[in-house]
Amino acid sequence: MQTLKVSSSQGEYNVYIGKGIRFKIDQLLPKSYEKILVITDDTIERLGYLQDICEPLHQSGANIYSYTVPSGEQSKSIQQYEQLLTYAIEKALDRHSLIIAIGGGVVGDLAGFVAATFMRGIDYIQVPTTILAHDSSVGGKVAINHPLGKNLIGSFHAPKGVIYDLETLDSLSLVEKRSGFAEVIKHALIRDEELLELLMNQVDSLENIDYDILHQAIYKGIEIKANIVAEDEREKGIRSYLNYGHTLGHAIETEAGYGKITHGEAIAIGMLFALRLSEKSYQIDLPIARIQQWFIRLQYPLKEIGSLQVDSLVERMKNDKKNKQGKIRMVLLEDVASPQLVTIQEDVLAAELSIFINEVIGNDKGN
Amino acid sequence: MQTLKVSSSQGEYNVYIGKGIRFKIDQLLPKSYEKILVITDDTIERLGYLQDICEPLHQSGANIYSYTVPSGEQSKSIQQYEQLLTYAIEKALDRHSLIIAIGGGVVGDLAGFVAATFMRGIDYIQVPTTILAHDSSVGGKVAINHPLGKNLIGSFHAPKGVIYDLETLDSLSLVEKRSGFAEVIKHALIRDEELLELLMNQVDSLENIDYDILHQAIYKGIEIKANIVAEDEREKGIRSYLNYGHTLGHAIETEAGYGKITHGEAIAIGMLFALRLSEKSYQIDLPIARIQQWFIRLQYPLKEIGSLQVDSLVERMKNDKKNKQGKIRMVLLEDVASPQLVTIQEDVLAAELSIFINEVIGNDKGN
Repeated sequence: MQTLKVSSSQGEYNVYIGKGIRFKIDQLLPKSYEKILVITDDTIERLGYLQDICEPLHQSGANIYSYTVPSGEQSKSIQQYEQLLTYAIEKALDRHSLIIAIGGGVVGDLAGFVAATFMRGIDYIQVPTTILAHDSSVGGKVAINHPLGKNLIGSFHAPKGVIYDLETLDSLSLVEKRSGFAEVIKHALIRDEELLELLMNQVDSLENIDYDILHQAIYKGIEIKANIVAEDEREKGIRSYLNYGHTLGHAIETEAGYGKITHGEAIAIGMLFALRLSEKSYQIDLPIARIQQWFIRLQYPLKEIGSLQVDSLVERMKNDKKNKQGKIRMVLLEDVASPQLVTIQEDVLAAELSIFINEVIGNDKGN
Repeated sequence: MQTLKVSSSQGEYNVYIGKGIRFKIDQLLPKSYEKILVITDDTIERLGYLQDICEPLHQSGANIYSYTVPSGEQSKSIQQYEQLLTYAIEKALDRHSLIIAIGGGVVGDLAGFVAATFMRGIDYIQVPTTILAHDSSVGGKVAINHPLGKNLIGSFHAPKGVIYDLETLDSLSLVEKRSGFAEVIKHALIRDEELLELLMNQVDSLENIDYDILHQAIYKGIEIKANIVAEDEREKGIRSYLNYGHTLGHAIETEAGYGKITHGEAIAIGMLFALRLSEKSYQIDLPIARIQQWFIRLQYPLKEIGSLQVDSLVERMKNDKKNKQGKIRMVLLEDVASPQLVTIQEDVLAAELSIFINEVIGNDKGN
């Protein structure tokens, strides 16, 4: 088991990474709790992880309650949020109780926002079960969706711990691995050229990814994320670099309709577009062709963007949370591992996006 | 105009207190904003304060949007909260926008919680229009109600400023003045014996309260509150002293049904009970009879508690947010201005409450 310390304005917390550590979760809590509410989704419950975690907690003598929400983005709704609060009140949780979130980003974000706002904030611990959640479980961003947009309702509430059992990744589908791996690539692109090289050289398929490489990539990814959020918890500056690829990515996700394309797949396309824009903006050479070929080998569905309208995408990008005074802002790279937050003119963006889409769908090796 | 500085973990902010300062609100903002959402209730709108404040803001060149909720506690609902978020999204507010809350505690708590959670938190400014809000507008506690209990959903989100125009207090009803004045008395009781003496000697009626005394009382009350929250923002320790009188007070409010008795009236009864319990617990002499007679002169409806059941009140007190491991905790006074947070046995509490109720309703001078 490896341990990473993360600093936040609400104190320091540990991220534990290892195999099978869910079975000793009782030993990894920062203190003892009288009441614990474990929140998960029905997929995770079916896989048995809920039971794996409740068992040692029961034996520690705490009162354990569990609540299972349906799997999927639709659970990040105001209605589901209210139902969880009702359950917490009915079970008489108090300010000294703990919430544990077992699952991917949806469960983490939802349970985290419940913890952030129940009685003005109680402790919570993240137990990520996806590669994607190596990103979302660290840094204290929690949120639910509004019918008009994703993650528009939320807050910053640092967890008291993250317990990352790598064994739980075995049950991921290929699509889920692909989605999560995009955020690992993002961490490498914005901060660690060496990691990027390692990944490009060693990972040619996500189906048979080497276990040690995955472990290393996740550890590095969390370390990069932790360093950035320790420096800028509330996204006044450099935290926005973590949004690399997300401006177009979010627009693709929303425009295609949630579920049509995964978060990471959309981000992969967004990162590629940001690379092209970076090359033009800074008049530099970036290894775009090499990265694009790699993305194709990893089966990121780049050509999906061909079915979307440039105007609609730009319109969506105008609702991005990074924007200021109605101007679109994107993260570009002055070089690999050197990100900058840049204001982009709407007409330039539309023109470049149009060129990019033609290039991507014109490439017969895309899939 | 007087200015008080308040420290919070999210930075320092100013509390401005003066007459007619709502007309120059544009000069009291901490910085300029492109978009401002002003939230108020229909009573305040009818009194013209919404217009008074929007006028100078308009002239400053900002885009001003306003939203009026129905007056009263029922507006602190999840539904109203969601409607406000929808409005903010529709008006394309972003992370750099400002929310201004004009009104009493209901508007302040509701608008504050919207600001705390819209896009993970944006700036907000409180413009209190009641005496009661001298308390709630400072300290960053924001919340909405759950059908199962008051203020159960919320967070800590410090305002960027508090603009307290004393002229707005002229439009308060006698009942509202009485409610708000109870929190001023509370601040004196837990922290400032001199202020308590001044108030007891100078304020014999809330109908004709001397304007300078009221100004002084509010200034001192805010100062006391600000000092306590600067020391303990998240209520790990001494901030709980501000809950003096509230354990029984909240139970009375809920048990009587909201609207039957005001917050401050219920707190007045709660403070008197806590004084009696303090005297017995610490074997000391407190000026209880004098304070009780003063409360009767100020027309606090002490005898209302006679219509409530001891068992039901104790049951309500068991849901208090200060409680730990199911044990009831109350703030008692070792002396005037020397509070302590104390665990009370349920049977002792029930017995003492029974005696207290008999004493209060047996007093023919009560009303």
